[in-house]
Amino acid sequence: MLVAQQQYRTIWANQPAGHGSNSVSIIDQTKLPHVFAIAQISNLQQMLLAITSMQVRGAPLIGAAAAYGIALAMQHDNSERYLHEAAALLIQSRPTAVNLSWAVQRMLTRLLPLAAAARAAAAWSEAAAICDEDVALNQAIAAHGLTIIAPLARERQRTLNILTHCNAGWLATVDFGTALAPIYAAHDAGIAVHVWVGETRPRNQGASLTAWELAQHGVPHSVISDNAGGHLMQCAEVDLVIVGADRVTSRGDVCNKIGTYLKALAAFDQHIPFYAAVPTPTIDWSISDGCKEIEIEQRSADEVRWVSGRLASGDVAAVNILPPDTPVSNPAFDVTPARLVSGIITEQGIYAPADLIQLRGV
Amino acid sequence: MLVAQQQYRTIWANQPAGHGSNSVSIIDQTKLPHVFAIAQISNLQQMLLAITSMQVRGAPLIGAAAAYGIALAMQHDNSERYLHEAAALLIQSRPTAVNLSWAVQRMLTRLLPLAAAARAAAAWSEAAAICDEDVALNQAIAAHGLTIIAPLARERQRTLNILTHCNAGWLATVDFGTALAPIYAAHDAGIAVHVWVGETRPRNQGASLTAWELAQHGVPHSVISDNAGGHLMQCAEVDLVIVGADRVTSRGDVCNKIGTYLKALAAFDQHIPFYAAVPTPTIDWSISDGCKEIEIEQRSADEVRWVSGRLASGDVAAVNILPPDTPVSNPAFDVTPARLVSGIITEQGIYAPADLIQLRGV
Repeated sequence: MLVAQQQYRTIWANQPAGHGSNSVSIIDQTKLPHVFAIAQISNLQQMLLAITSMQVRGAPLIGAAAAYGIALAMQHDNSERYLHEAAALLIQSRPTAVNLSWAVQRMLTRLLPLAAAARAAAAWSEAAAICDEDVALNQAIAAHGLTIIAPLARERQRTLNILTHCNAGWLATVDFGTALAPIYAAHDAGIAVHVWVGETRPRNQGASLTAWELAQHGVPHSVISDNAGGHLMQCAEVDLVIVGADRVTSRGDVCNKIGTYLKALAAFDQHIPFYAAVPTPTIDWSISDGCKEIEIEQRSADEVRWVSGRLASGDVAAVNILPPDTPVSNPAFDVTPARLVSGIITEQGIYAPADLIQLRGV
Repeated sequence: MLVAQQQYRTIWANQPAGHGSNSVSIIDQTKLPHVFAIAQISNLQQMLLAITSMQVRGAPLIGAAAAYGIALAMQHDNSERYLHEAAALLIQSRPTAVNLSWAVQRMLTRLLPLAAAARAAAAWSEAAAICDEDVALNQAIAAHGLTIIAPLARERQRTLNILTHCNAGWLATVDFGTALAPIYAAHDAGIAVHVWVGETRPRNQGASLTAWELAQHGVPHSVISDNAGGHLMQCAEVDLVIVGADRVTSRGDVCNKIGTYLKALAAFDQHIPFYAAVPTPTIDWSISDGCKEIEIEQRSADEVRWVSGRLASGDVAAVNILPPDTPVSNPAFDVTPARLVSGIITEQGIYAPADLIQLRGV
C-alpha cells in the first residue's frame, strides 16, 4: 500500500532469493505514527527482538517475519540442530499467533529434507512465497468481504459506519490487511464508508497504526476510546464490526486483541453484524473451545504504565500514567465465543462459525 | 480520607460559615497522581473553570462544588438576578451529572426567599450542609454495600476480586466515595479484597485517581486496560462489579463513565453481579429510558489525543498519541440499561432496578 505516494510492503528481503548473503527490511511499527522508519534485520536474534518488541506485529506479518527469521538462521548455520533451535525460539517469541507456528512448521517441512547446503537458498525462497501467498489471501478476503459491505451500503443509502479494533490492516500483514482489506476494497469501489477506530489500549495499535494507514489511503475515519464502542453501537452509529484475529478455533471462537470480546458483546446486544476476517492459516483446527484451550499472553506491565507519543515540542517520548509501584495485569488477547460471531471472512468465502469446519483440509 | 497520613476532604470552605469573606479549597484532581496540590477558588468563574476542567469531578463532588459556587457568587453580588445567572452557568457547566442541578436547585430554594443581604451567609452554610450530608450518605452506602461483599467473601473463602470503572471513590465525592465506599468498609472490616481498576480512557481516572486513593488507603488493587475487563470476567477473575453513576433513571438505567455499558454486558454474560452505588440525589425521577432521554456530553478531542503522565525525568507532560489531524469522537458517558443491572446500592438500602421506584419521594 502507499506511504507518502510510494508503494510498500511491511517486510521484504533486500536481495532476490538465491542471491547469496541477504537481509530483511521491515517497517518499524513501534515508531508509527510519529516516524516512518525502515529497520534492517540481519540475523535471527534481531528478528526475534523485532517480533517480541512488536516492531512487526499482526498475526500474518509475524508468520512472514518468522519465515524470514528461519532464512536468516540458515544463512548463519544450516545445520539441522540450529534449524530446530531457531524454530523453537521463534515459536516461543509470541505464544498466541497461530500463523507463527504455522509458518515455522512450513519452513521446517520444506527445509529438513534438504541437504544442509541447500537450506539457506530454499528458505529465502519459501519465505518469499509465504509473503506472496499472504498478499493473495488478503486480496481474496477483500473480495469476499465486499459482498457484505456492498449490499449493506445499498440498503442503508448513506455512509456505512464500520467499527474495527486494533490493527488488522495492511500493517498487520504483508500487504492489504485482513479486517481492513474489505474496507479498502469498498472505499476503492466508491462506496462511502467511515471507520470507527478503537484506540486499542494498552499499545494503541488502533490510534497509532490503523488511523495512520487509513489516513494514508484516504479512508474517512474517527478514533474513539475503546470504551466508546458500546455506546456508539447503542446509538445506531455502527452498521458493521470487522476485526482480525490472531487465532480462530475449529468451532469459530475468535482470539483477538484484548477488548474484542467486549465489542462483540455490544454488537450482539444491538443486533449489529460482527465478523472476523482471517486467512485460513489463522484457523487452529487442533482446538475448539478458545476460552479453555488458548493460552493468553501476559505482556509487560510497562505497556499499561507507559504511553508513547509526541510532546508539544515534536519529540517522541513516553509518559508514565500510573502512581509509582502500581500493580498491573496486562492480558494481551481475549476470546470471543462463536455464539457472538456472525461469520468468519476467509479467502475461501464467508462462513458461519458452525460451518467453518467445512474448510478443514481445504 | 488519608493522604500522606493526613485527613482530607476533596472540598472545604476556608472559613467557618458566617465568617465574612470566604474562599474554597479543592484537591486539584487534574494533577493527580503525580502531584498532590490544593487549589484556592475565590469566585464563581474559578469554580466554573474547576468544574469544566475537571479539577473537581465525580457527580457528588460536582454538586458540592456547584453549591460552593453559588456561595462564592452571593458573596460577590447577592441580587436575585445574579443568583439566577450563577445557577444557570453552573447547571450548564457539565450536562450529565444530575447532582449538579439538584444542588443548584436546593441552593435556589434556600436562598431565593431570603433578603439579599442574608443570602451569602445562608449559602455558605447550605453548601457546608450539602457536603456533610454527602459524607453521611456515603457512609450509609458503605454499610449497605458491605452486606453484599461480606456474604460473598464468606462463600468464596478467598480474596474477593471486585472490578470498578472510572473513579467513584472518595475523590469523586466529598469523602468516602460511592462505589469504593463498600470496598473501603470491607477492607477496614478485615475482609480480603482486591480491586481491578480499569484505567478509564480517555481521562484515565481509574489509573490516576482510583489507583492512587486505593494505594493511599492500602487496599490491594491492579490497574488493567479497559479492554481487559471482559477477559477477566470470562476467566472467573471477577466476583463482583461495583461502579458509581452520574445519573440513574427511575427504571434503573445507569448513566456512568463511557465504557460502563461494556463491562455490564460482560458481567451479565458471565453471571457476575453488577451494582451501581449512588446516593439517591443521583436518581433522576424525571426520566425513565436513559438511552433515549439522557443527553451524552461530547468532550474535547484533545482528551483522546493527549495523554498526560510523568516523563522518565519526573516532569509531568502530555504526549499526542494520534497521527496529525486525526478526527476523534469523544462521548463521555454511556447508559447501561436496567436489564443488565443487579441492583442499585443507595444510602436507603439496595434496590433491584424494578424496585427503585419505591424510593421516589423518600
